[in-house]
Amino acid sequence: MNRLIGSVAAGVLVLCPLAATLHAADESSPAVTNVAGAQFPRIHPDLSITFSLRAPSARRIQVAGGDGLGKGPFAMTKDPDGVWTVTTPPAVPGFHYYWFVLDGVEVNDPASQTYVGYGRETSGIEIPQAGADFYALKDVPHGEVREKRYLSKTTGEWRRALVYTPPGYDKDPKARYPVLLLQHGRGEDETGWTRQGKAQFILDNLIAAGNARPMIVVMDRGYAERPGTAAVQAGADPSLQTVQDAFSVFEDVVIHDLIPAIDESYRTIPDREHRAMAGLSMGGMQTLFITLRHLDMFAYIGSLSGPILRPMSPDTPVEAAMQGPFDAKTAFAGAFADPAAFNKQVKLLWLGIGSAEPKPFRTSIRGAVVALEAGRVRLRYFESSGTAHEWQTWRRGLNDFVPRLFR
Amino acid sequence: MNRLIGSVAAGVLVLCPLAATLHAADESSPAVTNVAGAQFPRIHPDLSITFSLRAPSARRIQVAGGDGLGKGPFAMTKDPDGVWTVTTPPAVPGFHYYWFVLDGVEVNDPASQTYVGYGRETSGIEIPQAGADFYALKDVPHGEVREKRYLSKTTGEWRRALVYTPPGYDKDPKARYPVLLLQHGRGEDETGWTRQGKAQFILDNLIAAGNARPMIVVMDRGYAERPGTAAVQAGADPSLQTVQDAFSVFEDVVIHDLIPAIDESYRTIPDREHRAMAGLSMGGMQTLFITLRHLDMFAYIGSLSGPILRPMSPDTPVEAAMQGPFDAKTAFAGAFADPAAFNKQVKLLWLGIGSAEPKPFRTSIRGAVVALEAGRVRLRYFESSGTAHEWQTWRRGLNDFVPRLFR
Repeated sequence: MNRLIGSVAAGVLVLCPLAATLHAADESSPAVTNVAGAQFPRIHPDLSITFSLRAPSARRIQVAGGDGLGKGPFAMTKDPDGVWTVTTPPAVPGFHYYWFVLDGVEVNDPASQTYVGYGRETSGIEIPQAGADFYALKDVPHGEVREKRYLSKTTGEWRRALVYTPPGYDKDPKARYPVLLLQHGRGEDETGWTRQGKAQFILDNLIAAGNARPMIVVMDRGYAERPGTAAVQAGADPSLQTVQDAFSVFEDVVIHDLIPAIDESYRTIPDREHRAMAGLSMGGMQTLFITLRHLDMFAYIGSLSGPILRPMSPDTPVEAAMQGPFDAKTAFAGAFADPAAFNKQVKLLWLGIGSAEPKPFRTSIRGAVVALEAGRVRLRYFESSGTAHEWQTWRRGLNDFVPRLFR
Repeated sequence: MNRLIGSVAAGVLVLCPLAATLHAADESSPAVTNVAGAQFPRIHPDLSITFSLRAPSARRIQVAGGDGLGKGPFAMTKDPDGVWTVTTPPAVPGFHYYWFVLDGVEVNDPASQTYVGYGRETSGIEIPQAGADFYALKDVPHGEVREKRYLSKTTGEWRRALVYTPPGYDKDPKARYPVLLLQHGRGEDETGWTRQGKAQFILDNLIAAGNARPMIVVMDRGYAERPGTAAVQAGADPSLQTVQDAFSVFEDVVIHDLIPAIDESYRTIPDREHRAMAGLSMGGMQTLFITLRHLDMFAYIGSLSGPILRPMSPDTPVEAAMQGPFDAKTAFAGAFADPAAFNKQVKLLWLGIGSAEPKPFRTSIRGAVVALEAGRVRLRYFESSGTAHEWQTWRRGLNDFVPRLFR
């Protein structure tokens, strides 16, 4: 029952938690996302990965995970000591979720840190990208990431947001800053942009290089329910109305609870010219849903890999409402109907995607981009080369988006 | 390979990540430590727990975990749908780590949040204690928990500490605060005191009730290596010297890197009368090791469930060095040799333990307490009734310790 104190010494004092497993003397190294002391998974110079799990009694183990790992699942093989291993093909650089399938059960790798993805704690692996250090922890001044609790009248609960304050925030108590609201994707939470996305280091590095204005970044939890109601239990194909109802609760949180709490607690510049919102995937959809209904509050808008809803009847399956012709005149209740007025009011509309994302994402976003441009709506389109619906796409997107804000 | 986007709608929009599993209509409710939407584990009114895992192909599954769960492991049984369940005896209130043993492999519960314990990500469950709300998130002003990066000359790396700033910290840019350094136990990390321990809510509640002075609490990672050296790979029974060598690296981090960085970054009162250090288990040992060598820097000292080292030869196995007669005159290089001087210099020496901790912890700590009191060293001894080497002991200890600081 007690693996903490098999002996007092083992319990209190063994500083290295996972014993190093023997491995061949090669050029591979443990992933930085491993827990302290774990030697596997290991990344090879060609970015192939060797995974390992000791399970003498198992009959079948596979590794599976996000797109960037390649076309798995990958079958592992067992050595005489009961240790299962597999070396995958070279992976795409960036952050990838993964898990083992152990005799049919999806389980995490005990050697990996976990990250909230797919609505649960999930193992993750960071694959280095040669020459890319824009999201690295570098020797530059660092901001802080703060857990901020605020009371939501909409949900009746104390909620948690994470708030990035830029380097030097505490040094000059008179300086005020613009604000970016930055949302995670479905199945993730408010920790995604800093733990998986490294947003705080992207901001630190951009600010240190003089390429971004120092700003406050607010990362909230993109789920909300009114008191006494259950979370939306959407089926595999919810209606447009179901989705918009869910978004509208979060809209009320953002507009009536979060923004006032941030403006009250931090030295913001509390006007629309100094307020941006962006998000990835579901967070991008929420961003367009919220900002286009509140253009009096936001001058900068970004959607990273967020499918773009077409105006359709409320009972349309939402998947269908993301595809098909995009009518710039009627979409989003006519927000783009007068492009000259929109272009004057909105300082930046930024839409991004990874070139390797699945076709439904690409056609949804590209279709809207083409229609908006044809309708003379000014926008910035960004494409991340060779990356899928994954964090490397969104790190690159953020790195392109942030320098354009508040200029 | 891709469970994010089986369909766009399923990938982007299904807001409730884990489908609710049907359960009997009874008085049980899902643990608050479950991931969003997960219906198991469930806690019954008598504090027994029902665990559940779907694994049709498994041959044997058990639940195991921390002391407070009871004398497991508990064998689960499979229903015709391949879902394994077990209901444990009533658990001790508080936070307990747990895991499944799936055909011999220790795996986390996909329905649980994970917490760094035992040197890895580990499932955890919060068992409510009737009438105890001192660690609850209440409707009071809340401080912030900040991720602070600082450059360590000792290790040559940017390290991360978590820093609690009290409610109102940002409101009065002239107010200065005392500082408590607060350390986690072996196998845990700097997130333990807030995620498992709820230290931020304990502080919020004490401050709101006027029972503690507003203070800054600094939670650092209690592991450190000098550049070019590997982590201490202590065996099952390291020597006293090995342990002290490891502690001395962390000592250098605390004294030369962390405290200066905190005093530089926050509005502290940077003197010994306004600086405390405390820790649990290994963190308590580190606290005594560091503070008793630097009494010019600390006036308040707390050790929660930390075994207390006897002065012995460097090659003594550390487990032996925690037991046996405690000589107040020679322990800790004579720090207590002049009790009158010690009592004048040290405002508080606080030693705590849970009454249900294993005997080696109790004899180590009680033996030292008796000897110190016989030697006329003034100290405060605290015992948590009915709790073991676990977080409920340390929450209660912190709640007793903090009100005594900086008075």
